[in-house]
Amino acid sequence: MDLVTIFSYFGTWTIGSLTAIDLIAATTNAFNGALLARRKDHYRHWTVVGIVLIAILGGIGGGVARDVLLNDIPAALTNPWYLILSTLAAIVALRIAFTTGQKFREGLFQFMTAFALPWYAIIGAQKALNAGLPVIAVVLIGIIGPTAGRYFIDITAGVPPKHFIKGEWFVGTAALASVLYVALYALGVQFYAATLITFLVAFGVRLLALFRGWEEPEPPDTPDDLLAGGKPRPLLGDAIREELNPEEK
Amino acid sequence: MDLVTIFSYFGTWTIGSLTAIDLIAATTNAFNGALLARRKDHYRHWTVVGIVLIAILGGIGGGVARDVLLNDIPAALTNPWYLILSTLAAIVALRIAFTTGQKFREGLFQFMTAFALPWYAIIGAQKALNAGLPVIAVVLIGIIGPTAGRYFIDITAGVPPKHFIKGEWFVGTAALASVLYVALYALGVQFYAATLITFLVAFGVRLLALFRGWEEPEPPDTPDDLLAGGKPRPLLGDAIREELNPEEK
Amino acid sequence: MDLVTIFSYFGTWTIGSLTAIDLIAATTNAFNGALLARRKDHYRHWTVVGIVLIAILGGIGGGVARDVLLNDIPAALTNPWYLILSTLAAIVALRIAFTTGQKFREGLFQFMTAFALPWYAIIGAQKALNAGLPVIAVVLIGIIGPTAGRYFIDITAGVPPKHFIKGEWFVGTAALASVLYVALYALGVQFYAATLITFLVAFGVRLLALFRGWEEPEPPDTPDDLLAGGKPRPLLGDAIREELNPEEK
Repeated sequence: MDLVTIFSYFGTWTIGSLTAIDLIAATTNAFNGALLARRKDHYRHWTVVGIVLIAILGGIGGGVARDVLLNDIPAALTNPWYLILSTLAAIVALRIAFTTGQKFREGLFQFMTAFALPWYAIIGAQKALNAGLPVIAVVLIGIIGPTAGRYFIDITAGVPPKHFIKGEWFVGTAALASVLYVALYALGVQFYAATLITFLVAFGVRLLALFRGWEEPEPPDTPDDLLAGGKPRPLLGDAIREELNPEEK
Repeated sequence: MDLVTIFSYFGTWTIGSLTAIDLIAATTNAFNGALLARRKDHYRHWTVVGIVLIAILGGIGGGVARDVLLNDIPAALTNPWYLILSTLAAIVALRIAFTTGQKFREGLFQFMTAFALPWYAIIGAQKALNAGLPVIAVVLIGIIGPTAGRYFIDITAGVPPKHFIKGEWFVGTAALASVLYVALYALGVQFYAATLITFLVAFGVRLLALFRGWEEPEPPDTPDDLLAGGKPRPLLGDAIREELNPEEK
Repeated sequence: MDLVTIFSYFGTWTIGSLTAIDLIAATTNAFNGALLARRKDHYRHWTVVGIVLIAILGGIGGGVARDVLLNDIPAALTNPWYLILSTLAAIVALRIAFTTGQKFREGLFQFMTAFALPWYAIIGAQKALNAGLPVIAVVLIGIIGPTAGRYFIDITAGVPPKHFIKGEWFVGTAALASVLYVALYALGVQFYAATLITFLVAFGVRLLALFRGWEEPEPPDTPDDLLAGGKPRPLLGDAIREELNPEEK
């Protein structure tokens, strides 16, 4: 086998606009995954290899689930950038933790998850539209893209997945982004404009939910002995403040 | 984009007989999932969104796993009725719990799971036969269809999946239904007749197992310190009696 | 329907060299799965049916995940030998436990997992090369093949998956085998030679890791309160010695 053939194994390196957005989503989610792995409730004595794997799981998990459901070979396998960037993101996250001495940065983490979510929702919805799925399935794929990676991480760490419990409208924001994007698409709005509008709205709503502690409701008839206990999670504002002044803690 | 194109996004609404049976299975399983989410051993402070998601997971999970394994786009994505009916089933289950004041109804739940199981087994076996799989794989797909949704719910709630522990021949009944359906198919029995016979036999066996507490055996050499502890699960008869007379509890 | 048609349902029984290696991997992993199910940290009062299912999950799980990602119908479904041999392996494992009176044999188990790993890595890498994936994705598929089955078992038993925690270079050895195989392939080494070299190197490295207790490192900055506690896992040498002289225990 000659060198040209070998080089062809390294796959396609060109990146279209859909792929660019997908890569932003995967890389950000991988970074978040590596941070999340070291949050106390998720920490299970992971090795360095384990943390990189968790980052990859979080980074490409949503996109792989989406593509498998759409019956495609996952983009994360045909294009090498997904795995390269996810691995690099994990290394950066490990370095940040090492250099700052803060194992888990709640503020940085929350901000980045809010940032990551809309991209995957947009690309999921667009891919599902391309596949000719009915609207309700388009919205479901738009939810799976940004959230499935987190599902795999939570399951791996053995904690109840964030999608099903209070998580500042985690799934709700993904649904909102998908519905909004489909509406703009149906109205004939141009791709970049629809993407930008969807990103800004969903990112804004999620940040508001994080700062204000908005939550999806529990069923009204939940009996008292099943009511959520424990202390509430810190609002994003407090988390950032604490992160900037760690010594106050 | 014109209105006709937009409407086409809503997908195919026609329902064949295979799809009808698949929808019965999905809807019943979604209803059961929403009930199960609120059983004490599965409850993890789910939000309303979370309970609807669990219902969808339970409703379409088995069918999606089956179709992914058969390398098709899942029927639950191409036909909008799956997601619509699963969501409605979740809402009905939430309403029933709210209006009766009983968060979890063991009797209703057990009865409905027994009812739901054969449909998914039949459709799974038929689809696997259509794909030309060998008999042993047809039976496996016939087991995966009715049980994979429960696997996802149990994993999400962090409890040992019912398939692997005592569960009144949960997997065994799915295997029985699949084997029976394949046998009838090989004998040339007409589709509706084969479906009806398989349903009646599997539903009957499962109800008997539930009423009588029949269980798949544990290995004969299980050491004493590994033997199952805890109190046995209530028989279906007792559960129904308690449900009809909640004040006696 | 005539008998010929019915017989055709039993699928293809011919076995090529790729399939033979894949079957070795599946059968060994199924055997290991049935043993693992009865290790104390994994035991959850499984029934006999449950243990057979866990063996099947461990046996074909990696291959099914690999094939689904490569967008093929899983080989474990189109070829009946996978399910037949996995089921037989589970029965043999149950018999061994019963006749020796040792529910879980750490030495046998570790030795067999080391043996099983390279085969699945080789076949995964080769299949991914055939699919034309970039090298980094070939290595990922080469890792998923031998390790995904264990992931499903660990998730089912509710323990942190071995991939992410200390496990004597479990994932690392799979990565090594994949990289080595791809390198030999790129160098034009013939299939059987490449397979043999990869098997010997990966099996040797894994045995060494098991005997010497080599581990993937934890992040250097892991805070003391997050450090792994508990007693270390026994080295393979000690496990074998104890297994051969159970009365000394």
